[in-house]
Amino acid sequence: MSTISMPLEHTYASFLNRLATAASDSIMPHFRTGHDVSNKLDSGFDPVTIADRSGETAMRTIINTEYPDHGILGEEHGPENLDAEHVWVLDPIDGTRSFITGLPTWGTLIGLTTNGKPSLGMMCQPYVNERYAGDCKSAWYQGPIGTKALQTRPCASLDEAVLFTTTPALFEDEERAAYDVIEAKTKLARYGTDCYAYCMLAAGHADLVIESGLQAYDIVALIPIIEGAGGVVTNWTGGSAANGGQIIASGDPRLHEIALKSLASSAS
Amino acid sequence: MSTISMPLEHTYASFLNRLATAASDSIMPHFRTGHDVSNKLDSGFDPVTIADRSGETAMRTIINTEYPDHGILGEEHGPENLDAEHVWVLDPIDGTRSFITGLPTWGTLIGLTTNGKPSLGMMCQPYVNERYAGDCKSAWYQGPIGTKALQTRPCASLDEAVLFTTTPALFEDEERAAYDVIEAKTKLARYGTDCYAYCMLAAGHADLVIESGLQAYDIVALIPIIEGAGGVVTNWTGGSAANGGQIIASGDPRLHEIALKSLASSAS
Repeated sequence: MSTISMPLEHTYASFLNRLATAASDSIMPHFRTGHDVSNKLDSGFDPVTIADRSGETAMRTIINTEYPDHGILGEEHGPENLDAEHVWVLDPIDGTRSFITGLPTWGTLIGLTTNGKPSLGMMCQPYVNERYAGDCKSAWYQGPIGTKALQTRPCASLDEAVLFTTTPALFEDEERAAYDVIEAKTKLARYGTDCYAYCMLAAGHADLVIESGLQAYDIVALIPIIEGAGGVVTNWTGGSAANGGQIIASGDPRLHEIALKSLASSAS
Repeated sequence: MSTISMPLEHTYASFLNRLATAASDSIMPHFRTGHDVSNKLDSGFDPVTIADRSGETAMRTIINTEYPDHGILGEEHGPENLDAEHVWVLDPIDGTRSFITGLPTWGTLIGLTTNGKPSLGMMCQPYVNERYAGDCKSAWYQGPIGTKALQTRPCASLDEAVLFTTTPALFEDEERAAYDVIEAKTKLARYGTDCYAYCMLAAGHADLVIESGLQAYDIVALIPIIEGAGGVVTNWTGGSAANGGQIIASGDPRLHEIALKSLASSAS
């Protein structure tokens, strides 16, 4: 996938693809091989692989060389120049649990904020060889079945909705109760999906994603994809999703309103 | 993937690949497109797609033409000639929930029993373009990163184990309690994996899979892969897994003993 033909008009669309290729080249040699897994936090299980670190380093090096005035916010290394007009928001491996268990449902997330607002983003899955990218105005898939515009699907009620979440264990007490009310009303709920959930929503295969405890680098890259495909993504109070936290995305704005009302008592 | 070089010595290894290709050709045009989903059971949500049905028909047609004396047990159509020496056990789309939500973690399962025992099996994922196959003596991967022998990894205790299950909701009351005891002891638990769980175990990326309520066609194809990679798969009483039901698979036989003891009170 060295030549990319997604018709994004954003100034940095080509550079975005270059970053994705550099990250892929650094990460792929470590996928499905024995590799060290260290615990980033003393409590809980938060695996970080060599792949994660080298993927971010590869992207940072290119950004620092080409656009030294741009800022960088990444998962693995410290923030740089966050007051810049353009800030790259990087998560080299979103879905590290999928990665370390060999599943192909992790992705490299690369987002760009312009004056604080997400303006461009990509999810790249190098093993499957597919990319999802958007610039808030349009969004595109490129992979094994060609290049296609991404478009969310209509879904105006919870009982027709397919819901994704990484795991219900993500939610604190009150959040869990609010989440459970919604899950019980939906047609189908799927767990264990990470960034793929948002891309499948953008592609019209799912209707709702509800999560909590996200970092900015977990969601910034996905916002321009979801919005470019006609979807909505906010925090649980209906505000900007760009800072992470409690996140909800819907393919259909009507469904978003319904779900936001249902979550309101647990929104913070 | 028209030429397959996995060095399986089984008489029907080449035919197995032919069946997989036929199923893939029938299924892939329906993946990630709008398609009808019907409910197979009046209660609950059990999606069956056109793809599922046409995949099985494609395989049945070839088997009936080439080996009319062979039996067939499939998910979608009725059983044929189950007393035959060779019986093909087919699940065209294992992981229909993944399929309908666009995720690439479903697979076509093709198993062969010889005199009632699983002797050959394959999991084929045509979108990712990877296949896992085994004949109880060896097991192989072929896909984007080449052709490799599958080998389970050592893991002698639950606290070091990575556990897979499709969803804890699979388990009935007592089963759930027994499952929860094990999950609490493991290092990491992953949900939503279907046939991929067993293939990742065979490939040495996971240690334990625990499920319940499986049909024969959910597991028969996977047994020769797991055993060929050095793993163990039985029901919860330690008997044959070939009839489905309560299933447990381990990469390391020592772990299997530990987990079987823990599940014993809920085994039936």
